[in-house]
Amino acid sequence: MVFTKQDYQYMQQAISLAKQGHFTTSPNPRVGCVLVSNGGVIGEGYHQKAGDGHAEVNAITFAKKKYPEQIKGATAYVTLEPCSHFGRTPPCAQGLIDVGIRHVIIAMVDPNPQVSGRGIAMLEAAGITTSVGLLEEEAKTLNVGFIHLMTTGFPYVRCKLAASLDGKTAMASGESKWITGAQARQDVQRLRAASCAIISGADAIIDDNAKMTVRWKELGSLKESYEQKLLRQPVRVIIDSKNRLTPDLALFQCEAPIILMRTTIEKQHNWPHFVDQVVCLVDKDLDERAGEKEKRGTKTEQVDLTTLLLKLAQRGFNDVLIESGANLAGAFIEQNLVNELILYQAPKLMGAEGKSLVSLPNIEQLSQSKNLTICDVRMVGKDIKIVAKL
Amino acid sequence: MVFTKQDYQYMQQAISLAKQGHFTTSPNPRVGCVLVSNGGVIGEGYHQKAGDGHAEVNAITFAKKKYPEQIKGATAYVTLEPCSHFGRTPPCAQGLIDVGIRHVIIAMVDPNPQVSGRGIAMLEAAGITTSVGLLEEEAKTLNVGFIHLMTTGFPYVRCKLAASLDGKTAMASGESKWITGAQARQDVQRLRAASCAIISGADAIIDDNAKMTVRWKELGSLKESYEQKLLRQPVRVIIDSKNRLTPDLALFQCEAPIILMRTTIEKQHNWPHFVDQVVCLVDKDLDERAGEKEKRGTKTEQVDLTTLLLKLAQRGFNDVLIESGANLAGAFIEQNLVNELILYQAPKLMGAEGKSLVSLPNIEQLSQSKNLTICDVRMVGKDIKIVAKL
Repeated sequence: MVFTKQDYQYMQQAISLAKQGHFTTSPNPRVGCVLVSNGGVIGEGYHQKAGDGHAEVNAITFAKKKYPEQIKGATAYVTLEPCSHFGRTPPCAQGLIDVGIRHVIIAMVDPNPQVSGRGIAMLEAAGITTSVGLLEEEAKTLNVGFIHLMTTGFPYVRCKLAASLDGKTAMASGESKWITGAQARQDVQRLRAASCAIISGADAIIDDNAKMTVRWKELGSLKESYEQKLLRQPVRVIIDSKNRLTPDLALFQCEAPIILMRTTIEKQHNWPHFVDQVVCLVDKDLDERAGEKEKRGTKTEQVDLTTLLLKLAQRGFNDVLIESGANLAGAFIEQNLVNELILYQAPKLMGAEGKSLVSLPNIEQLSQSKNLTICDVRMVGKDIKIVAKL
Repeated sequence: MVFTKQDYQYMQQAISLAKQGHFTTSPNPRVGCVLVSNGGVIGEGYHQKAGDGHAEVNAITFAKKKYPEQIKGATAYVTLEPCSHFGRTPPCAQGLIDVGIRHVIIAMVDPNPQVSGRGIAMLEAAGITTSVGLLEEEAKTLNVGFIHLMTTGFPYVRCKLAASLDGKTAMASGESKWITGAQARQDVQRLRAASCAIISGADAIIDDNAKMTVRWKELGSLKESYEQKLLRQPVRVIIDSKNRLTPDLALFQCEAPIILMRTTIEKQHNWPHFVDQVVCLVDKDLDERAGEKEKRGTKTEQVDLTTLLLKLAQRGFNDVLIESGANLAGAFIEQNLVNELILYQAPKLMGAEGKSLVSLPNIEQLSQSKNLTICDVRMVGKDIKIVAKL
């Protein structure tokens, strides 16, 4: 099908609507929908948060209130293939059928290979014409993590690091506050706010007595387009192989979900109700590389990072953010578990004695070094922000 | 004076002409000149290389050939105040007077405080009207090094470094070829070609058996706008405090000027005729901080970097480029002798065991770390190029 200029405009509007859920839909995808009749918009909607109405349902509700007579025969523009299954809400494809939509234009099919195409089939079976692929690339950028999870079975893993221009995160003494500026730190808050989960290690948590939460007052200009009541804390996933964490840490003073990834359940302390302890060892059922790891002699008393990510995937977490020290970040990178590096560089030189950005102890030759592709470089305040794919 | 749109256009043309000397005028400034009569260009010229005609003289020669009758009463647009002294060529101000120029529009005055304004005074005394300041900022960027030398007495020092994203220049084993890509290496060749001198250390020269020359075939697209016969080798200034260099090194196989900066003259070897040995110790006559250095106990058996730069300044070198290892680059940076850092970052992670970018042994606290201001960040091929002022 050849799409018209108007088709592009309406789909662009649907994409803009979807973006309004950027910080709130986790772990669901961001979706927008526009209903058009007689060359005019009669309904618009987006998915705001898990458990609430899907984009199509919200657009229909909008249209029912304002233009009830024009729904029958209307065209729907949706950024993602309407669902065909009963989840927390009834299938959206059925909703479109029930109100008499005539055409459905879809930016991209459902990325889950097990259900992809079913929503379209349901619509077509009801006599609705469908067209797929309008602004598909733009629609894909709405849901990088969701698509990655559905197609690979792994969350999309971002690793955030911050250093001086010469790659140092701290002085030899450990002194490190603050290397980057306020605007870069605000940017990190936005990254956290858009993630399903933040992964960190016990060392980093203890060293900085870090809360690892999203702080509303540090969200900068985002506060103008996003309501405080919608603030959602990403799940804090802390790797604590040696049971070093204690409930008195600042981490546990914020009542928001925490998963402690352990080698054994720690029973000595009285953990708050929002803390979940998960044993995360090499798991043959989950990890295809388990045999290989055993051959290499991976110690079973360590949390296994592949298993960790697969356990997060089972919970539906798609966008996850690693914020940790050089050892844990390096371990994820060395095991090829990171998809995207987000590096903030402060305009400083700290010298060779400082602490280095990532520890990659198994890399000895230049040919083994990790190669990246730079996707974006820009200034954030006085700092440089680099986004690169691994 | 209010400049007209035409004035801006003609001065822009003069600046474009000046840029044609970017790689060739060293150590002279880059200057362009346009002569205009009755609303049309009758002459244009730029300074190509030291010893050849100045921009004004070249523009007059051009006009004399093509529009001899229109020179009298014409307006000259010059990017730099015409000179008033006899050097290798007669004063340009006199040249403009002699042919009957009526108006001279000047982008910037001569930055040398000892002669600044004299050219203008000479013109005014002859009844020529002058206007100063048109596109002054653009004109200043033509001659960053020349202006810096004239106003501070020091060359403008750029320090080029290349590393991975995590600030490593080599693996622990020393393996380092090639970290950055071909386009970044071409960019370095252009940097060299635009510099009066390249400063390096004996260690780096010996380790890589480096020639430190500009290689025509690696100049990339520059070859299309710049003639090979104009290729000028920057003077190679090598710090060799311990007399480690020997004439068999590749450095000495290219017949182009070399200055060996030493603590004593090395007489054992038979050096080629293009090699100049210079003793470069703390010099009280040159270096205001000599007393302070003696108090700090700077060893007299080391080449003194401030003295080195002042000796280069005495030879008229204005744009100098440091290309060295972590120790020498760090020493220049620690002594606040670097004006601009040019950092190429390859999209790689090499790990904490690799060799760090700069050694700054006297910096122990974060507050002492060197702060920079990022001036430019861009992609060069697959690498990132960062330009920052110190």
